[in-house]
Amino acid sequence: MLAYKEMNREELKKELESLKKDYEQFRQENVNLDMSRGKPGPDQLELSMGLLDVLNSKSDMISTDGFDCRNYGVLDGIPESKKMMAAIMGTSMDNVIVYGNASLSIMYDAISRSYTHGVLGHTPWCKLEKVKWLCPVPGYDRHFAITEHFGIEMINVPMDENGPDMDMVEKLVAEDEAIKGIWCVPKYSNPTGISYSDEVVKRMAALKPKAEDFRIYWDNAYAVHHLYADKQDEILDIIAECEKAGNPDMVYEFASTSKITFSGAGVAAMATSKANIDSIKKQMSIQTIGYDKINQLRHVKFFNDFDEVKAHMMKHAELMRPKFQAVIDMLESELKPTGIGQWTNPLGGYFISLDIMEGCAKKVVAMCKDVGMVLTGAGAPFPYGKDPDDKNIRIAPTYATPEELTKASRILIVCVKIAAIEKMLEA
Amino acid sequence: MLAYKEMNREELKKELESLKKDYEQFRQENVNLDMSRGKPGPDQLELSMGLLDVLNSKSDMISTDGFDCRNYGVLDGIPESKKMMAAIMGTSMDNVIVYGNASLSIMYDAISRSYTHGVLGHTPWCKLEKVKWLCPVPGYDRHFAITEHFGIEMINVPMDENGPDMDMVEKLVAEDEAIKGIWCVPKYSNPTGISYSDEVVKRMAALKPKAEDFRIYWDNAYAVHHLYADKQDEILDIIAECEKAGNPDMVYEFASTSKITFSGAGVAAMATSKANIDSIKKQMSIQTIGYDKINQLRHVKFFNDFDEVKAHMMKHAELMRPKFQAVIDMLESELKPTGIGQWTNPLGGYFISLDIMEGCAKKVVAMCKDVGMVLTGAGAPFPYGKDPDDKNIRIAPTYATPEELTKASRILIVCVKIAAIEKMLEA
Repeated sequence: MLAYKEMNREELKKELESLKKDYEQFRQENVNLDMSRGKPGPDQLELSMGLLDVLNSKSDMISTDGFDCRNYGVLDGIPESKKMMAAIMGTSMDNVIVYGNASLSIMYDAISRSYTHGVLGHTPWCKLEKVKWLCPVPGYDRHFAITEHFGIEMINVPMDENGPDMDMVEKLVAEDEAIKGIWCVPKYSNPTGISYSDEVVKRMAALKPKAEDFRIYWDNAYAVHHLYADKQDEILDIIAECEKAGNPDMVYEFASTSKITFSGAGVAAMATSKANIDSIKKQMSIQTIGYDKINQLRHVKFFNDFDEVKAHMMKHAELMRPKFQAVIDMLESELKPTGIGQWTNPLGGYFISLDIMEGCAKKVVAMCKDVGMVLTGAGAPFPYGKDPDDKNIRIAPTYATPEELTKASRILIVCVKIAAIEKMLEA
Repeated sequence: MLAYKEMNREELKKELESLKKDYEQFRQENVNLDMSRGKPGPDQLELSMGLLDVLNSKSDMISTDGFDCRNYGVLDGIPESKKMMAAIMGTSMDNVIVYGNASLSIMYDAISRSYTHGVLGHTPWCKLEKVKWLCPVPGYDRHFAITEHFGIEMINVPMDENGPDMDMVEKLVAEDEAIKGIWCVPKYSNPTGISYSDEVVKRMAALKPKAEDFRIYWDNAYAVHHLYADKQDEILDIIAECEKAGNPDMVYEFASTSKITFSGAGVAAMATSKANIDSIKKQMSIQTIGYDKINQLRHVKFFNDFDEVKAHMMKHAELMRPKFQAVIDMLESELKPTGIGQWTNPLGGYFISLDIMEGCAKKVVAMCKDVGMVLTGAGAPFPYGKDPDDKNIRIAPTYATPEELTKASRILIVCVKIAAIEKMLEA
């Protein structure tokens, strides 16, 4: 097959005609496929069913520090749960607060608290004229939804294979006191799957923001979510790096077991400096008497230690690799020869990021939807849902089976090709 | 024994001398007693250990509407959990959102959301000069802590055996647009144990507040928490009453299973109108992907239906009655003859409210603490922790054993008597 740019108009038209027949064929097949959300598949959820057996009516419900996990109390989590979440984040348990089932809620809460009460004694953001935020793109749509919800102006920062453009980040935060934060998914980033290089982490930790209440929102969502046993990304510990750089209070780190055990019923945590923890706990003591300590205990008893967490993640990897591979194989065999797409082939995380011809992403997503195949909305990985180049498509290959993913990839690729040729013929 | 007011100074001095000997005796006994918080006793927690058996690794984890409770999704709770929480609140499941483990967090969240984003399109409270709140007293300290945290000016409203002073409530809300809410614990109120009369509920539902974004915060914390099978308070359904009165959006009702199953790991819910739910869900969709549906499922499977909830509450009652009785017996036999105290003898809930001689509560709490007996801080049941008469003491008789409570009551009563006599002798 020729690369499209080497085809003449007649060849392109002929190719288009053939692709449209394929597309009509898909329509007649009444497919029902979904590559839209980063949800674990049912097979992955089965891996954690033992979680429901570790506690029963005969169990000892007392935490290592002597608290009855069934009763009220323990604001920041039982010690053994702090220890487990600290291991996942690669930090010390003294830096950890354990919450409920969702790290997204912790991030919302952190921004909401900053908005209503300020950060470590600084002016509450609701009293400021303008608050701005740095958003490495493509990124996680639910992050951007939170900052948008609070009327925070979001600024796109380009990402490359090492992380965000740190020249730009350093310059902007040093100049503009209105910039109060940056969203980061530092490991197996959503959606590109890249991990921040040591240099990027060190530069991030050494930022000299004009705003003293600037915070790095370090969503370590895929901390242990490797796809391979032998090829794994590792990132530096941002909390230690911030301490070393003299910015101990500058980072909030987040993680959860949502994609380790049950997505809807895991344990989420935050890690940060002692000063931040003391301040946050003051608000928490108004907000709750304590989170679900039984679920914290259940998770600790299921895993026992961090080695078991890592072993468990390899079971996920075994289920996920064929799914990622199904998509990558199709992209390699069906799209690569045309020269009209670029994609990531990550070592972990939940996504493949596909860049197609500029101006085509919305059209492709709509075409896929028309024949029963749901993708994440085009533009979703960008603030305000606006992909400036309209070219990025986020592929979530975890929920479906490898066979479904092969089928879904075929549909996607046909649509990508049609949109590209139509665009080329317009020119 | 003579009532104190009938004793002359010499008799009082002699009584005081004898009481002080008792008090020194307590000190030497090195007691360690706690009547401070409304925590279920370990015996009560044992009643729900079966909750840990209803789900195991072989269980079907699918909700009645076909959702996998282990995975992401279902913002407002699984249907069977809505149904259960609706039954507890005495409302329809269409009015219910099921959250995580703590109703206190839902209340905090509701106020925080009103502060940052306003209520049903009205101005966010953070943009207002002043927000005020009505606080029936004595009331729940954690309620008052939330409104205080948001800088909301709290206004005391007296309570009698039928509920808040509705003449005062009606007048204030009609006059002052800054008044945006009222805290209510309508059934077995914290701490007095009284339940709102039908007339009070109807007048509450028919309020004509000047502020369109005024909301009744109806914390139905003790909805099914009766102490007796044959003597039970019932209250009108505030949501239905508000609808009838043409104020369908005026109430947020809250409840949880914290004092039904496990205090730290229950299920909490809110009930309100469709318009409010639609508005709240918009924010929720930014805040979380969903709460812990497995714990929702666990609770439904444990109870099956509302009759089982009621039967379960009678088991709690059997454990709690002797505890309440231990305190009441002591108050009746040791304090009543002196004529210096008044207390409630509730049919449900978690507290006994004791009024002693004016100006003595702080002193009594401090004296008890000095000999190893912890009470809720004096003033706690009032906004800003200020009991205007310094006379109210909240007794929480659930956590200790009846024997401990008899002992604790003896200490408390001796301190109450000492403080009263010293005050009388000062005069």
